[in-house]
Amino acid sequence: MMTAEQMLIDDAARIEARLDFLTRHIDNDYPTLHESIRYSLLSGGKRIRPFLALAFCRMFDGDEAVAMDLGCALEMIHTYSLIHDDLPCMDDDDLRRGKPTNHVVFGEATATLSGDALLTEAFSVASSDAIPNALIPHAIRILSKAAGADGMIGGQMIDMRGETERLEFDTLLSMHAKKTGALIRAACLLGCLSAGITSQDDIRYQAAVTYADRIGLAFQVIDDRLDAIGDTDAIGKPVGSDAESGKTTFLTFMNVDQAYDYARDLTQLAVDAIAPFSNKEPLCALAEYLLDREK
Amino acid sequence: MMTAEQMLIDDAARIEARLDFLTRHIDNDYPTLHESIRYSLLSGGKRIRPFLALAFCRMFDGDEAVAMDLGCALEMIHTYSLIHDDLPCMDDDDLRRGKPTNHVVFGEATATLSGDALLTEAFSVASSDAIPNALIPHAIRILSKAAGADGMIGGQMIDMRGETERLEFDTLLSMHAKKTGALIRAACLLGCLSAGITSQDDIRYQAAVTYADRIGLAFQVIDDRLDAIGDTDAIGKPVGSDAESGKTTFLTFMNVDQAYDYARDLTQLAVDAIAPFSNKEPLCALAEYLLDREK
Repeated sequence: MMTAEQMLIDDAARIEARLDFLTRHIDNDYPTLHESIRYSLLSGGKRIRPFLALAFCRMFDGDEAVAMDLGCALEMIHTYSLIHDDLPCMDDDDLRRGKPTNHVVFGEATATLSGDALLTEAFSVASSDAIPNALIPHAIRILSKAAGADGMIGGQMIDMRGETERLEFDTLLSMHAKKTGALIRAACLLGCLSAGITSQDDIRYQAAVTYADRIGLAFQVIDDRLDAIGDTDAIGKPVGSDAESGKTTFLTFMNVDQAYDYARDLTQLAVDAIAPFSNKEPLCALAEYLLDREK
Repeated sequence: MMTAEQMLIDDAARIEARLDFLTRHIDNDYPTLHESIRYSLLSGGKRIRPFLALAFCRMFDGDEAVAMDLGCALEMIHTYSLIHDDLPCMDDDDLRRGKPTNHVVFGEATATLSGDALLTEAFSVASSDAIPNALIPHAIRILSKAAGADGMIGGQMIDMRGETERLEFDTLLSMHAKKTGALIRAACLLGCLSAGITSQDDIRYQAAVTYADRIGLAFQVIDDRLDAIGDTDAIGKPVGSDAESGKTTFLTFMNVDQAYDYARDLTQLAVDAIAPFSNKEPLCALAEYLLDREK
């Protein structure tokens, strides 16, 4: 059997090819926009969100082509959020995955518009002829709820507050549930959707929510831990930046060992949630891989 | 019969109330986002795009509640584009409709996120339970195409080029067709959609496209003319700013009288396009009103 890392790499290549195809039409009149969008979108990355959509699709016998495109729509939303987060008026980051950030290469105006375009095109992809009409309303609702003011953007607002004031633990949880958790949950629900699962009463839907919320939170706990003890070259940004900036993180409330134990418990809860299903192995392996990753 | 201005004012009040309702849920955790979004969204404005959706809906016996919400989604997209356009890294404008721009009041980070949130929430509104499922895929396609890289954002990219180099007349036309024309066309098509009209072969669909493209272009020609000869207090920004910045406008290619004649001819073509239909009067009156407006 393939390791989780091999599976991720295998799917990431297919996801990259599809993202390339879906953004090829943006061209001619405004080559800079085309280049800027693709510079950030096709820059590697683990593609965890599309992978989750595909893995839930496979576990529940869904339509893989649908899961792929909905997963790509989500990856476009994820990428737009990174471009805007890196802007000077936001986190003012010059490096992302070891490369200069979008605005450093293309300027702030084009970076702003590229983010706007990626968010808009995500909805175009999710409403294309490749997605059955009956699924489109559900897909758009999942995407817009996860990315909007009550999801990712709301989390970003709390995160901004956390840079100047200390957050309570519950607020930190809420921030992560919205800022990154919402898109991870959306990924799993879009995988369910590709198998026609839309009811909140369906045990498969509930398992997807539980799995997503647990690995989403574990991912953030490990992120904070890596920021404190990871290898700068491996994670592609300076170690200790959170502590230096006085930002509230999980390490404000626990030490690095406690953080690992917390993430391990969450990972176990995620694995338990999908225990009843056959073909769950890739999702179990992913959860373990995310727990023990070094970047 | 009411004048076009009275009709606009009458509908604008109902549109404002609906926009208020549709954004009231954004609250509590991040009051600044709530306030920032509503500061720009509920700040008056002519509401031409929702008005067009409603007028086409009425002319073709559509569902007014559907046209209202789809028109509001479009107004949210229009508002997001204004917030981002005004940012320091874009046009760097401090005033909009006589009020300080969003980033001046709330800061650049919140203004960026408010724009992002409005764009996202627009898709949420257009896929809500208030819109029949069968219409949602069409609505999302119309909105995302008009707002995306091949529509509004593509036009914005050409506009940025026009600030540093002289554009050809055809490029100027293409810039306006995308930057503002695409949303105006979308407004008319969403009105058609509320009446179940989705086929490009339908003469009502074709009339909507022709009307929209003509008044959209006339609107821009008059805008450029007002920038040169209008009243600063009436239009809410300094007169002559285009000429001063050396930007390519219609007045690069014609004088103010020729510009008026050009806009008048376009207005006549718009009126001709809807001549076959009963209940066309509000749309005829709107076209005339936009031609002879003073701000």
